[in-house]
Amino acid sequence: MDKLSGVYGKEISRFLSEFLIKKGKERSGINQWVGDVTGRLDRLSVGGKMTRGSLLILSHEMFEGNDRKNSVIVASALELFQTSVLVHDDIIDRDSVRRGLPAIHKQYQKIIPPESSGESIHFGDSMAVCAGDAGFFLLYELLSEMTAGPEVSRFIMKLVSREFARVVYGEMEDIYFGFSATTPPPDEIISCYISKTARYSFSLPLVIGAFLAGQKKEILDSLEKLGENLGLVYQIRDDELGIYGKMDLIGKPVGSDISEGKKTLLFSLLLSCCKTEDRRKLEKISGKKPLPKKDLQYVKDMIDKSGVKGKMDSIIRENMESAGNIILKLPVAPKYRAILDSLSGYISKRDK
Amino acid sequence: MDKLSGVYGKEISRFLSEFLIKKGKERSGINQWVGDVTGRLDRLSVGGKMTRGSLLILSHEMFEGNDRKNSVIVASALELFQTSVLVHDDIIDRDSVRRGLPAIHKQYQKIIPPESSGESIHFGDSMAVCAGDAGFFLLYELLSEMTAGPEVSRFIMKLVSREFARVVYGEMEDIYFGFSATTPPPDEIISCYISKTARYSFSLPLVIGAFLAGQKKEILDSLEKLGENLGLVYQIRDDELGIYGKMDLIGKPVGSDISEGKKTLLFSLLLSCCKTEDRRKLEKISGKKPLPKKDLQYVKDMIDKSGVKGKMDSIIRENMESAGNIILKLPVAPKYRAILDSLSGYISKRDK
Repeated sequence: MDKLSGVYGKEISRFLSEFLIKKGKERSGINQWVGDVTGRLDRLSVGGKMTRGSLLILSHEMFEGNDRKNSVIVASALELFQTSVLVHDDIIDRDSVRRGLPAIHKQYQKIIPPESSGESIHFGDSMAVCAGDAGFFLLYELLSEMTAGPEVSRFIMKLVSREFARVVYGEMEDIYFGFSATTPPPDEIISCYISKTARYSFSLPLVIGAFLAGQKKEILDSLEKLGENLGLVYQIRDDELGIYGKMDLIGKPVGSDISEGKKTLLFSLLLSCCKTEDRRKLEKISGKKPLPKKDLQYVKDMIDKSGVKGKMDSIIRENMESAGNIILKLPVAPKYRAILDSLSGYISKRDK
Repeated sequence: MDKLSGVYGKEISRFLSEFLIKKGKERSGINQWVGDVTGRLDRLSVGGKMTRGSLLILSHEMFEGNDRKNSVIVASALELFQTSVLVHDDIIDRDSVRRGLPAIHKQYQKIIPPESSGESIHFGDSMAVCAGDAGFFLLYELLSEMTAGPEVSRFIMKLVSREFARVVYGEMEDIYFGFSATTPPPDEIISCYISKTARYSFSLPLVIGAFLAGQKKEILDSLEKLGENLGLVYQIRDDELGIYGKMDLIGKPVGSDISEGKKTLLFSLLLSCCKTEDRRKLEKISGKKPLPKKDLQYVKDMIDKSGVKGKMDSIIRENMESAGNIILKLPVAPKYRAILDSLSGYISKRDK
């Protein structure tokens, strides 16, 4: 994945950066916030890995597309969506750091007007709601610069809007889960993972890249399914790393999913195969902050004892098999089939 | 203005409502929030006066356009933008009521999961951030259903995205003003009024309606200017009503602009022509909640004494004159010129 971003990431990052800086300058006469917000979105965007955009260009290349210009435009728009949606996510999740920078709402807290009568938290949140909104409208302005034919542009505009809305519906489900005292059943969590991560991060770029290369419904449907498989495995691996990963690799404290009371698939599966007594104990541990070491150990022991790792592995296997079969049938050169295989291998085994 | 909405408002409202209900049903399989959020956006939208959308269709008609279908699509998209941006505004301004309904963040506070461990305010705000975001993506999906030619669609997509972003930049300036202890000079407030209200509420619909009727740059530029004139007068009249209006007509307590410490043009002009001593006293009154009757009376007296009403009137007159001259030169039938004249008369004299 890092390799993939290494190949295409820089091109996307440079293009997006130029676009944002241009818009900031072009409209600096409106007020001070134009340059301010485009600058913040730019700095936050270039800190990302550009995996979604890179996947789009890879897909376009492997279907021998020659519309690099529009691929880079849409790839950059997807990355700007990602940045903007993270700005809102960080307000919602009260996260302080993003891509090595203070989260945008934290940045704004620091520039509250001198002698302000209000509180800095509400000021920061309010400005960050606006910054995310501005990012959304900027990405659509970028999309309006596509030079593809009218049918192609319309299809892409409609598709991204539908999928972006779906990310939001998934986020709402996630918020509701987060505030809820009970853990939803595994199938509901899987459906949330697919809406919130898999479809938009994997299916969408794969489909758009191929579509811009002239591919038709049958192939697009396969790529959509492939994206769901890969994205689901990616998210499940995230659950595992939250318990078994190394902090310096995963970028968050081990066990933080437990201490934050996150309703992960791993935790839901664990509850579903526990005795009532253990279940109660686990539910008490979930959301405990700070999380005592012995509680984290207890959760790990329960995972080992319960056989839930086997269940996770079988979901991963199932999805990897489906992905493998789709990749095998894709009408692409062996070189690209190998890249996809190695990508899917990386996703299932990644340790960061 | 009410008359204008009476003519076209129902058509827009019905179309938008049908779109939202259709999207809610079409994607109900994703999760419970699809139907939930489209329903809330629908109920909030239909409570609006549809003035922006109506202005768009009026403009289209007066230039003898025959693309009613696309006019209604874009008019509905503008109204959905308005609803969605209000959802975010109400979080920012901590308003509780909107268009006779509880504000969306207030609505969500009531459905926080039972036995939730978090606080309902943050839950409500988080869900409402998402609801506004969903509205934005839905309106772009609606725009992608335009059947106008590729150049027309691209022009509109680009124009609305630029203007929507400008509304956000204006909102940021407004937030910053609101948190600031000092009142900005009149020209900065006028520029904020133009960005936040005038261009988007008046210029944008006038320009799009004419553009869809095939009008070219010269006319579009005139309409842009006309919209800025009318919008500015509209907003200035808002300032006056906040002090001199009748509560049951303006829908908020008289003097609330003062008690909320709003940095209105009226207040800024007042400060700019006061002696230091009075200025200090006025700045102390601004933001006082509740506002004692004698303080409101003091502000009124100062307005009368300072001659600031004359200044406001002269800004209004200047903009009305400019508007009148533009209307006079527009190549439209006398019937429509009369409608525009009566609209601009209404705006400058309205009492609600």
